[in-house]
Parts: sequence; C-alpha cells; structure tokens
Amino acid sequence: MKKETHGEKETKKAAKAEKDPEKEARKKENSALKAEIKEMRGRLMAQQQVIREKGLPIIVLVEGWAAAGKGSLINELISEIDPRNYNVTSPVITPEAESRYPFLYPYAKAIPENGKIMFYDSGWMEDCVRKVLHREITKDEYKKRVRAVTEFERQLRDGGYVILKLFLDISEKEQYKRLAGLRESFETAWRVTDDDMWQLREHKNFEKTYASFMDKTGDPIPWHVLDGSKRTLAARDALKLLLELIDKALSKGRYVGKPFKESFPLLNMPKLRDVDLSPALTDEEYDKELKRLQKRLGELHNVIYLKKIPVILCYEGWDAAGKGGNIRRIARPLDPRGFDVMPIASPEPHEKNRQYLWRFWTRLPRSGHVCIFDRTWYGRVMVERLEGFCEEDDWKRAYNEINEFERQLTDWGAVVLKFWIHIDQDTQLQRFTDRQNTPEKAWKLTEEDWRNREKWPQYEEAIDEMLEKTSTKNAPWFIIESNDKKYARIKALRIVIDALEKACRERLA
Amino acid sequence: MKKETHGEKETKKAAKAEKDPEKEARKKENSALKAEIKEMRGRLMAQQQVIREKGLPIIVLVEGWAAAGKGSLINELISEIDPRNYNVTSPVITPEAESRYPFLYPYAKAIPENGKIMFYDSGWMEDCVRKVLHREITKDEYKKRVRAVTEFERQLRDGGYVILKLFLDISEKEQYKRLAGLRESFETAWRVTDDDMWQLREHKNFEKTYASFMDKTGDPIPWHVLDGSKRTLAARDALKLLLELIDKALSKGRYVGKPFKESFPLLNMPKLRDVDLSPALTDEEYDKELKRLQKRLGELHNVIYLKKIPVILCYEGWDAAGKGGNIRRIARPLDPRGFDVMPIASPEPHEKNRQYLWRFWTRLPRSGHVCIFDRTWYGRVMVERLEGFCEEDDWKRAYNEINEFERQLTDWGAVVLKFWIHIDQDTQLQRFTDRQNTPEKAWKLTEEDWRNREKWPQYEEAIDEMLEKTSTKNAPWFIIESNDKKYARIKALRIVIDALEKACRERLA
Repeated sequence: MKKETHGEKETKKAAKAEKDPEKEARKKENSALKAEIKEMRGRLMAQQQVIREKGLPIIVLVEGWAAAGKGSLINELISEIDPRNYNVTSPVITPEAESRYPFLYPYAKAIPENGKIMFYDSGWMEDCVRKVLHREITKDEYKKRVRAVTEFERQLRDGGYVILKLFLDISEKEQYKRLAGLRESFETAWRVTDDDMWQLREHKNFEKTYASFMDKTGDPIPWHVLDGSKRTLAARDALKLLLELIDKALSKGRYVGKPFKESFPLLNMPKLRDVDLSPALTDEEYDKELKRLQKRLGELHNVIYLKKIPVILCYEGWDAAGKGGNIRRIARPLDPRGFDVMPIASPEPHEKNRQYLWRFWTRLPRSGHVCIFDRTWYGRVMVERLEGFCEEDDWKRAYNEINEFERQLTDWGAVVLKFWIHIDQDTQLQRFTDRQNTPEKAWKLTEEDWRNREKWPQYEEAIDEMLEKTSTKNAPWFIIESNDKKYARIKALRIVIDALEKACRERLA
Repeated sequence: MKKETHGEKETKKAAKAEKDPEKEARKKENSALKAEIKEMRGRLMAQQQVIREKGLPIIVLVEGWAAAGKGSLINELISEIDPRNYNVTSPVITPEAESRYPFLYPYAKAIPENGKIMFYDSGWMEDCVRKVLHREITKDEYKKRVRAVTEFERQLRDGGYVILKLFLDISEKEQYKRLAGLRESFETAWRVTDDDMWQLREHKNFEKTYASFMDKTGDPIPWHVLDGSKRTLAARDALKLLLELIDKALSKGRYVGKPFKESFPLLNMPKLRDVDLSPALTDEEYDKELKRLQKRLGELHNVIYLKKIPVILCYEGWDAAGKGGNIRRIARPLDPRGFDVMPIASPEPHEKNRQYLWRFWTRLPRSGHVCIFDRTWYGRVMVERLEGFCEEDDWKRAYNEINEFERQLTDWGAVVLKFWIHIDQDTQLQRFTDRQNTPEKAWKLTEEDWRNREKWPQYEEAIDEMLEKTSTKNAPWFIIESNDKKYARIKALRIVIDALEKACRERLA
C-alpha cells in the first residue's frame, strides 16, 4: 500500500471541496436553519401560555399545490405546542356540506376560540380555485366567493383574530416527481387522488388561477408564498412569520377594526316614530285570512323543500310586541322536519369566545329548510351597543359586516327576511301590566323587561339607525305594526308568502 | 207538490239515521276527541313553563310506517308549544354520517337539553330495522344495535330524561292507498322514496321485524302503538301519554336511576399501591426507542386511515404525572389531518345541561381518525364523585354505563385504549415544587392541584375502584408507570402500536 504524502492528501481534500462546494454550503446552511427553527420553536412554546392568557385567537391557513408538503409544514409548526392549544382542520367537503350550506360554512364553523391556534390544512382558497377550474361554479359565482373570502378574513381580523396565510409553491416538475413517488408504494398510493393528477395536467391553469386568487385576496391580509421544494427553509420562514405576527399582536393588544362604509343598495325606511300603528283586523277577517295564508304557506314549504331554497326569517322587536305568537303562526303550517326556530339568548361562554357571528354561522339551516331566528345577530347593534358589551368601533363596524354576511347568505341562494315587530310605549305598558296580573303569563315578564323599557329612547335611536343602515335590497327589513297582533301576524305571513312565491318562480328545481 | 205528512218525514229521518248510524257516531266521537285534544293542548302549554323551570328534558320518539302520518302527528303535538321550548329532528342519515360514526351518533347528538322537548321524526328504530332488512348490516350487528338502543334509552332515563316512544301503525292496504295518493300529484310525489315503495313490497318482513324490535326494546321504556289510520284518535292518545309522563315526572322530581351491575369481561388490575414505579430508561435507550416507535406509529397511521379504523386514546392520571408530554410523543408522528387532541375541562353550561356522556358523543372522531382525550368521561367516577357534582347513585351507575358506552364504541370498530399515568406522592410533590420554582412552568400549577393532592387517599380509592370495574377486554386500562417519564412514553407508544398492529391485521380495508 502506497503511503500518501501530506501534499497529496491536501490536494485530494481541496479537489473534493472544489467538487461539492455547493453541497457543503447547503449543509452548513441547513444546520443553521435547523438551529434557527429550534430556537423559534422554543419561543413559540414559551408564548403559548401568553396567547392563552391574553385570549388571542390565531388562524394559520396553509394552502398550496397537491403534494407541496402542507401537512409536513404544519407538523413542523406544531411540534412544540401543547395539543390543548391548537387544532388542525382539513375540512372534509362532503357532498352534503357542499351543496347544502354556504361555501364558507365549514371554515367559519372551524374558527378557533380565543387563546387557541387553528391550522387549516388547505381551505377556502383551494375550495374556490378547484371549483371554478372544474366548472362546478360559474365565473360570476367565483367572483362572489372571492369577495366573500376577503370579507370573511377582514371581519375576523377586525374582531381581533391574527391571521397568517401561506401558499406552498412547487414547480410542475417537482410535483410530478412527488406524485409519482407516492404512487409507487402501496402504502402511500391512496394519498394521490384523481383530483391531484388532474391538477398536474392542468398545471398552467392552476398557476394562473392561484396567482389571480392571491392577487384579489391579498388585502387586507397578505399572502406569503413559500418554496415547497425547500422544506427546512419553508418551515423557518413560516415560523418566523408566525412569531412576528404573534409578537406584534401581543405587544399592541387586541386589534379592534375601524368602522368602514361600503355602499350597499339600501331601501328607504321610515323612522319608528312615524309608523302608523293603528291598522287592525276584525276577528272574522283574521280567521279567514289566517286559514287561507297558512294553507298557502304549507304548500309553498313543499316547493321550497323540493327546490332546496334556504329560508331565513329574522325576528326582532320590542319586549311584549308579540314575536312569539307571530312566529308560531308562521311555524304552524310548516312541516316540522323542514324548519327550526332558533331562540337567541345571551351567548354562552364558548360562543363569547369567538367572533360574534360564529354562533349564527353554526345555526344556519340546510338548503331547503326554513330557519326562524327569534332574535338575531342584530343584538350587536342593539343590546351590545347599549349595554357596552362591545367597543364602539365594534358595533359601528357591524352594520357593514352584517350587510356582508347577509349578502353571503343571499348569494348562496337564501331568502332572508327581517321583521321588526313594532308597538308603542303605551301598548307595551298595557301588556306588561296584563302579564303581571295574569298568573299563567307572569313568567314572561322579567326585571330586565322593565329596565329595557326605561331605555326606550336610546333603543329607538339604535333601531332607527339599524333599519336605516341594514335594510338592503337582498335582505330587507319589514316593520310589522303589532299594536294589533292579528294584523301583525297576517302582515308577516303575507310578506313571507310573497317572497317565497317569488323565489319559487325564479329558481329551477 | 205533495206535502209530506208528519209521519212520512219521521220515516225518512229514521231511514237516514238507519243508513249512517256509524257516520253519526263517528262524527260525534270525533268532535269529542277534538275537544279533548284542545283541552290537553292547553294543559301542555301551561306546563311548558314548569318543564323549563324544573329543567326536565323530554324525548318523544315517533316511529312508524312510511306515510303513517308521523309528521302530522308531531304537528298536532307541538301546535301550542312555544317554539323556544321544543325542536324536531329528523336525522338526515348522510352516507358520511352513516359509515363514519357509530350508528347512534346522530341521535345522541340531538338529545335535548334540560327543560326542552325533542321530537324525533323517526329515529334509531327505523335505522336498525331498515338496515337489517336491506342487508346493510348482519344479523349479529343488528343484535348489537338493539342492545345499544336499550342501553342508550335506559341511560337517558336514568339521567332524568322523560322518554315517550310511539309507533304509528297502518295496514298494508292503507299504506298502499296513501303512497299512491302522494305519487299522483307532482307537488307531493317526491315525498315517496324508492325505499318507501320497497317497504310496501316487503310489508310482511317489516311487520315482523318492527314487532320483534319493539319486543326487544320495550324494557325499560315501553312502546305505544297508535293507529295511524285514525289521526285524531292517535293525536289524542299521544297527547294523553305525553301529559301523563310529564305529570308523573314533575310530581316526583327528577329521576335518578339506581346502580346496577351487568357482567362485563373484566381484566384483573393491580391496586395502585402495589404498582412498582421504579422502571426507568437511560437517555440512549429512550432516544433510540422513541425514534423507532414513532416511525412505526407514523406508518401505522397511514394504514389506520386507509382501513378507516377509529382510534380513541384516553388519558387520565395524577396532576403532574406527565400526561401532556406523553400525549405529545404519541401525536408527534401522526398526520395532523388525521388526529385530534381533545382537552376535557369542566363542562360548559350547555354541556352540563345534558346527559354527562353527551359532550363525549359529540367529540367522537370520524372513522380512520385518532382522537386523544386528555381527561375523559371517567371524570364522572373521580372528580364528580369526590366533589359531589353528581348523586351517589349517578356515579355508582356510571361504571356500567361507561362499559356500555365503550362497548358501543368497540362494536362500531374503534380501538379504545385507556391510560392511567401513574406516579407516587413524593414524585408529585417534587414536580409541583419544581414547577413553582421555574417561571416558565409556574402557570401549570394551580391552587386546585394542591387541593387535589390533599385528597390523594380518596382519589386513590376511587381510581382503584374505577380500574377494577371498567377495565374490560374490549377497552382495557393500562397503568403507565411515570416516575420516569421516558419509560412512561415508551410504554404508552408500545401499547398503542401493538393494538394498532393487531387491529390492522384483523380488519379488511
């Protein structure tokens, strides 16, 4: 064996280094990245308790190409977080959920509560892009969905949510390599869906649509594109972005969005004090009309069900105005399998811990069903405003947020009607006294009713503002004069029937 | 025109009466029934406030033949109840829900909260009978479901629920007439499903199976068969039965079921004080095994997902025993899309307002997913027992109820493993002190932890009893020695892997 001289050894070493300087550099870089990741994970671990204490809700949306490594990236991010503090959701879009609820429904349902982090393993972006390329939705519908997405994200941000949006990018070549690799082994082949292969074939189209989606939804919550072919780098970048966002949110305190004004096509509403409350019906008129209208409503309910039209009826009104009785007259002719009455009381703790519309998102009816809300999301601009349950900016912002929410509902195809059941102060006093003096009715009257009554002028102001700012063409308010309850019931029935007849005429089965 | 004599008139009248004496009698009877119904509805209306105040939860299950009039009957019952006090559910059995959750899941999810009435417009009976006749489930599975149904009903009754079970019966001829009638008109034809027509053809088989189902599930909650061809009579009878049940429940106060003992195949468990807590691992052994086992678990997770096996891991243990860290080591290699960690804290108000297992029913994983419960339904026989959050009969009954619940889970196909993470008192004290002295960990230690520590002997007694009475063959307990956390993590990982390997071997894809 020939012994190498010192000179020879050196030369070889140099040659090797010359051969793979890139590899060496990469190796070095990689271990630097790993150290960084470790340090940042430690910071995230330390922060989670503060996140919990401060009740900061965090959303991390991870979108990207099939096989780009979304799952692995999420795994990198969560590895040091206590499982009690985060969740991962990859909404299973069942045909049921798909066709029978608004498209944002599964995502809205999954928003985290205060103090928790929710990772979306792909979400509303994929949902929109795939569907429009698949031609499952029209271009016009796609546009509406894109708008709904920006509204949804902004509303969450304005409600104090921290949102990080990531897009994991890989090239066509890289995707081909990865999908082929997965398909080679029996244990992983099932992970590659037909849809994934279709995406590979339609690469150019997807690229264009992803880009335009990000372009259209980058404001106010920006997108961050990460290179999916460099896993460690992507993980480092994602962690860094997340930590920066959290640091910022924690240092500044909970964000409360400013009020803003979008122009919705509003209907002219009278001031409450100008409403003539004298209309009344005789018993005979009432009985005859009630019977006729209920029969018609029962027939329409069949058609609604068949045509899968969702119907949302919103009841608000003064205490003792007769909401309950009015609702019962609408509900009576409906098939109990096809409707629900949703009584809305003060929010439960798990509801208070989420954006204020969450408890209504989760109560939406399936298409073809009727949902009657006995009190609604308008609590935000009435009781929450007057009792100081939210910031001034919160309720001022709510008019537009609610208009957006309701437009999302009508875009989905829902009939949305809103009733203000109206009486005057004298009538209320008379009904309060009547309740007080009738043992079977006494339970209906509470201390709170009397307290609310004292605030009549403030409420009237708030209600006038609400009616003015939220009676949109697509989701109108109707003032129902209810000094005479019979008149009020017939009027509400007629409005519902007119709207349903119109909807049935306009929609295909 | 010939004038009739008085005698002639009398004769004609008599002849007419002779012709339709039945019709006359029926008419009379009918108006008597209607008066009765009206009176009973009034009583129900008056009672609803008491039902609410006393927090009485009521279930009305309406089963019966297709087109027997289940919906109309429910309509008769609810017509005077305030919509805020009841709900109607007709569980939509989607293919998704069907195959990926236990069959009782949609019904358990829908149970009413205290003070409310839930009407099931057909339910678990129809689900069982149709499926076995359709041969979607085997006879053996059918038997298990029938058992699960009686357990489910009894558990609800023992938890204070009032349950009324009605079966609306019509003859083959009557069903034929009604289905044909519905099919005649465009507006109602869609109501008749292929399944309904199939039931008509299979009338004899259905008759037999309905009867045997009622026979097997009539104890402890009896069935009431009503004649669906006589609507008014059926409504009267249903109202009467409902009112009687409510009166009884209100007069006696909330029912608390007695403890009972069914024989489950139990595993022998050592007493906690006899457990040797000395086992430990070196860092090298731990690192090597951890890596190997986590890799294996990751692979198995793929197979679990493919074979759609639901996995439920239950963690209980002393404070500071190392539950969290143990859970993290299991969760680390799992695909975040396929598992959830469910931290169980004290129940929220809407959870407290329902039977105690409800909040676990609603948290069950989809098949193919792993759900790790960080604390579980065993709170019933530990903290709830010791802090007096339930009656003595309640927690004593719970051993069997939980065994039944877990058998329902394993009958569904779930792997259920239960870990008691065990340490001794000295180790706990040391960890408490350590937490106290480490700022980053201090938040983990609460006053309650110290209070619980003082009750160590009482807890130990309760835990020993729990381990003794609920370690079934199908859902076993494992005591995990955790004085050395490394040893504990490796042991838990091994148990999970063994169980999953076994399940994967036994199940077809």
